[in-house]
Amino acid sequence: MRFVRFERAGQVRIGLAELDEQGRLRRVLDLGAAQARWGGPPVPEDMVAWIALGDEAVAAARRWWERAAGTTGDDAGSLWHPGDGVRLLAPIARPPKNVFAIGLNYRDHVFEISGRDVPQHPVVFTKAASAVQGPGDPIYLHPGVTEAVDYEGELAVVIGRRGRSIPRERAREHIFGYMILNDVTARDLQRRTSQWHLGKSLDTFCPTGPCLVHRDAVGWPVEVDVRTWVNGELRQEANTRQLIFDIPTLLATISAGITLEPGDIIATGTPSGVGMGFDPPRFLRAGDVVEIEIAGLGRLRNPVVDRWPGDA
Amino acid sequence: MRFVRFERAGQVRIGLAELDEQGRLRRVLDLGAAQARWGGPPVPEDMVAWIALGDEAVAAARRWWERAAGTTGDDAGSLWHPGDGVRLLAPIARPPKNVFAIGLNYRDHVFEISGRDVPQHPVVFTKAASAVQGPGDPIYLHPGVTEAVDYEGELAVVIGRRGRSIPRERAREHIFGYMILNDVTARDLQRRTSQWHLGKSLDTFCPTGPCLVHRDAVGWPVEVDVRTWVNGELRQEANTRQLIFDIPTLLATISAGITLEPGDIIATGTPSGVGMGFDPPRFLRAGDVVEIEIAGLGRLRNPVVDRWPGDA
Repeated sequence: MRFVRFERAGQVRIGLAELDEQGRLRRVLDLGAAQARWGGPPVPEDMVAWIALGDEAVAAARRWWERAAGTTGDDAGSLWHPGDGVRLLAPIARPPKNVFAIGLNYRDHVFEISGRDVPQHPVVFTKAASAVQGPGDPIYLHPGVTEAVDYEGELAVVIGRRGRSIPRERAREHIFGYMILNDVTARDLQRRTSQWHLGKSLDTFCPTGPCLVHRDAVGWPVEVDVRTWVNGELRQEANTRQLIFDIPTLLATISAGITLEPGDIIATGTPSGVGMGFDPPRFLRAGDVVEIEIAGLGRLRNPVVDRWPGDA
Repeated sequence: MRFVRFERAGQVRIGLAELDEQGRLRRVLDLGAAQARWGGPPVPEDMVAWIALGDEAVAAARRWWERAAGTTGDDAGSLWHPGDGVRLLAPIARPPKNVFAIGLNYRDHVFEISGRDVPQHPVVFTKAASAVQGPGDPIYLHPGVTEAVDYEGELAVVIGRRGRSIPRERAREHIFGYMILNDVTARDLQRRTSQWHLGKSLDTFCPTGPCLVHRDAVGWPVEVDVRTWVNGELRQEANTRQLIFDIPTLLATISAGITLEPGDIIATGTPSGVGMGFDPPRFLRAGDVVEIEIAGLGRLRNPVVDRWPGDA
């Protein structure tokens, strides 16, 4: 199941996406409408609240999906929205804490970016929760603040079940699902001090989506191809089996002392091919389009702008 | 005005604290009760929602405070709770993003901890929003995860008005008030990788309070004494005028690209005297009590435990 948050006629709702053969959005099942018709747990408009409902909510969504598939004509009309009539939003509008992100978690990226040794422990930093945005939303270049905005295509894990001290072998139970995340980074700010936080956290620097795919639709261990294009040129290509620290290790490391909560996001790290890895560096410019595709999770596409969205 | 969040008879509410001559809590004005009696903006139980109401809410609180001061007998009874009948909670239960914290922002601390040069720019990292707790709440040592838990007494700024690119000279307008914060740190985890986040973010590692003092009750620039005791022994003593990067600079630096929101917390850094600065280091042990006092903001007292609060 591909959970989505979407806007339609000024309302924000959550639903399940159905794709066509080309992977484009064909239509969205409105979970609130399904609940109104068939009963089950009330559907909030907030994905974090939905995730927090736990297994019961997932089971209800599955039931609704199966019943809705059989509807036709007017009967279907109140349940399904055509893909071209909705705007997809960030699946998680606001995680309960900053996005956890992992640095230097693919070997080739360690070498391209630093020439350093491969880390002995996961390098964990955060991206401000306020930076999260959705598919199609513009990445703002923040002229005057940074001159070195870079992309980082990544697989992100979304926590389903609350937990602390989660052992590796129970990691999967605590995962709700997966989505694509662009760990946009201002390289100059990232390197201005020892701590990377500011350079990782500027407004618009955390595009996510287009959907949040439930874990049952993704294999285990998670071995998916990650690819990033800028203006159609392939820049990054790797498989998450190449992660230095795999997903169970990341959950175990972070939750050793920190309670993970429903809706928490962990970005697992980026492979080689970032703009900074080129000589000379190839940072993002206004008019660029960054696309990240992960097999089974869809494609996240964001344009790059040098004018604040909404400003004249 | 000293805003507090408190629990009484199982209910969480917000109020204004009145102290006695010794600085102890005499009684709390229940803002919800005051609103019910005299009208004005509805009072949420969440301090962040209250702060977001802006100047109108502060003006109402001031009016209620003045009227309530004149009440007596039964008339006062429904408005005021005796200090010994309430439990004070973290003023901000959950900030909208992780707590921003500043490293190496007092000269003596830079030297005791690293022998490094004084930083050229504020060193900004974050503490997980889930680590925030209140006065009296135990600091848990996380045995098995860390063996080097340290205290850091700090002045924290709480944002009142949303803003990005806040110039130094407008910083004060964006501040709601101030509180004490203990930037508890697992030194071994902090130093395990280049990024400090995990060591700063374990559950219970961010005690705050006891109250959130409105900016009008604190001078400008903010020049207050910060003192930390462990088991009654004075360990840290400094004045915030010694900050390397002052409060306007911190707001300007962070908000250059990151939107600050009502309820965001910025911990301004700790002076010398932390446990790691001793030879041998003096880390916290079960049974210790850490107290931090800031002139005008009260005293934040937290015991240290090696058993998870609530576990048998």
